[in-house]
Amino acid sequence: MIYLDNAASTPVHERALGAMMPHLRGSFGNPSSIHRSGREAARAVAAARAKVAALVGAAPHEVVLTSGGTESNNLAILGIARARPRSHVVTTQIEHEAVLEPCAQLESEGHAVTRVGAGRDGIVDPADVEAAIAPGTSLVSVMAANNEVGTVQDIAAVAAACARRGVPLHTDAVQAAGKVPLDAARLGVSLMSVSSHKIGGPKGAGALYVRDGLRPVPVVRGGGQERGLRSGTENVAAIAGFGEACAVAAERMAGDAARVSSMRDALVAGVAGRIPHSSLNGDASRRLPGNAHFAFLGVRGEDLIIKLDEHGIAASTGSACSVHTQKESHVLRAMGLGRDEIDGSLRVTIGPQNTRAEVDEALEALVSCVAELRRVSPLRQKYGL
Amino acid sequence: MIYLDNAASTPVHERALGAMMPHLRGSFGNPSSIHRSGREAARAVAAARAKVAALVGAAPHEVVLTSGGTESNNLAILGIARARPRSHVVTTQIEHEAVLEPCAQLESEGHAVTRVGAGRDGIVDPADVEAAIAPGTSLVSVMAANNEVGTVQDIAAVAAACARRGVPLHTDAVQAAGKVPLDAARLGVSLMSVSSHKIGGPKGAGALYVRDGLRPVPVVRGGGQERGLRSGTENVAAIAGFGEACAVAAERMAGDAARVSSMRDALVAGVAGRIPHSSLNGDASRRLPGNAHFAFLGVRGEDLIIKLDEHGIAASTGSACSVHTQKESHVLRAMGLGRDEIDGSLRVTIGPQNTRAEVDEALEALVSCVAELRRVSPLRQKYGL
Repeated sequence: MIYLDNAASTPVHERALGAMMPHLRGSFGNPSSIHRSGREAARAVAAARAKVAALVGAAPHEVVLTSGGTESNNLAILGIARARPRSHVVTTQIEHEAVLEPCAQLESEGHAVTRVGAGRDGIVDPADVEAAIAPGTSLVSVMAANNEVGTVQDIAAVAAACARRGVPLHTDAVQAAGKVPLDAARLGVSLMSVSSHKIGGPKGAGALYVRDGLRPVPVVRGGGQERGLRSGTENVAAIAGFGEACAVAAERMAGDAARVSSMRDALVAGVAGRIPHSSLNGDASRRLPGNAHFAFLGVRGEDLIIKLDEHGIAASTGSACSVHTQKESHVLRAMGLGRDEIDGSLRVTIGPQNTRAEVDEALEALVSCVAELRRVSPLRQKYGL
Repeated sequence: MIYLDNAASTPVHERALGAMMPHLRGSFGNPSSIHRSGREAARAVAAARAKVAALVGAAPHEVVLTSGGTESNNLAILGIARARPRSHVVTTQIEHEAVLEPCAQLESEGHAVTRVGAGRDGIVDPADVEAAIAPGTSLVSVMAANNEVGTVQDIAAVAAACARRGVPLHTDAVQAAGKVPLDAARLGVSLMSVSSHKIGGPKGAGALYVRDGLRPVPVVRGGGQERGLRSGTENVAAIAGFGEACAVAAERMAGDAARVSSMRDALVAGVAGRIPHSSLNGDASRRLPGNAHFAFLGVRGEDLIIKLDEHGIAASTGSACSVHTQKESHVLRAMGLGRDEIDGSLRVTIGPQNTRAEVDEALEALVSCVAELRRVSPLRQKYGL
């Protein structure tokens, strides 16, 4: 199989797996236990926390370990907004459901939410964000990079706008972390969500950076782990793997980004040259190194994925999370794409483990699958396919 | 090391690890992806869900997979109570913090909570629970077995009382599941929390049984996984390991319980015969097979744990989760134990991987450590130690 769905999940890096194994075999203490076995577990969590902190430009005590990116986003958004009654949150129309759904929940609790749009290029204008901030705004949440079209937002400019208005900024960096440099302190971000399994770590771990002095209301309560911000026995093995994946990502980011983006650029050029009536969605340069997101007129994205799967190629229409609901992408709609473009969309996300040969093979498959599907397309006449 | 802290966490069973490994190496898809790699992951989650369901007497679709027991308890308690404004919850004074803290949160949101006491034996009287149910009660939450003293509650009687009053019953079965038979449907329980790492599965997985027809308000929102009740990419490897641990527990429960309780009984008899001024806390027979919880007058439990650790023996004072806060056990206080008994408490929890030789060695260490600490105890005169 040629796996080109790295935005959905990534293979566990050999070093991450190596960091996990001692905590799945032999060492299995609860980090809250005071005996040796517990202390070993607590040391592993502390070491991993330092590596996560280093990747995102945080101090270790500013890192709250969670079960993943979704929980991190929930803790940031529900946690900050719920600290005030009837507060106001500014976010965008192109966020992941893990941001949009907590925001919808806040509305049902009497809070207000403003959702700023994005351009046809998938870029949010920081001026639009600033204009949406009101006196009662308790939080701004703008994703660092989009999970569908891969566009990278100008978080520094958004953070500067938030700073001018004295409002904390949360950024969902689940897709961006480990792929583009993100230094929370330097960017002026107050909260940042990261996920392990998007960057070569195992599923089941994530983190929320919480700047010193901020204290979200906890979402999950109990034994008081993570300074009371996230209760539940720490998932030691997954946390150790996550930490190591962060270390690997930090070491290899520059080289991986260059190599991955050159493979992506070859794919984009190949599609542009060989598949008519196709387009690249989202800004061509302000995007994640591995993301290519196409629209193929006259082709249903789901059909294309199934055809590609028959050719041994794994890709996606958009967010893995909403695939079962089969609803139209809210991201592409917000960008102003037409129905036929949205229907014909395909996300190809390349990771550092992929090779140029794989990408070349995927291009060949794409050319033949699109042609095959277009031969039976009801839109054949409409677009002269 | 002789690990006798199995209530805090357990070694990952070889079969559970075997079930995890394919999802840490090689197969790493996101269960929401529709390509082969995603379908493989989804199949693994479905297979594990069926095994969890079989252990607790549920249909697979009644099992919500979570990040662990704490999240399960939060989803049950916050999720059911928040569905009605100003509702009323009945619980007990001896619950784990993962129940008590969500209940305290509900109070801060305008709901009411009644906390029923327990006897000196650590047993909750079902009649007390029934008497606490009021017309506005939306949920009763009574743990199946206590995490400190190991007492097993009469959940069938509590469930019958709840049924008479038409109120759903949640039981925190984190300690009981896999150790004593628990069939949710037969017991008449509506919600039941289970944790993976307490029964030979990995950390980072748990489940909430939610009886058909009940629908808690989600705590963590996003992509809509777990029928919208728990969003976030499924922790496939941990879920696969959890499922296998449930299968192992179901197969071996009767034999393990007999063997583990006979080791426990030998320890209890040894302590009673050789350590004066000691007592067993909690009912002697209505308790988990592996749990022995002692009070040693004139000894501080923390000092005893550290001494035992020097002898290579891992034990606990009580809940691993509250050990860092060093606060007095709310469970022992609710049972009416005196200050000196609470201070001198030690929890020894035996698992199926322990041997009789280990337990015998632990008894010898216990005899000598208690004697050593009593020689310098400020309570030496008071109790004639």
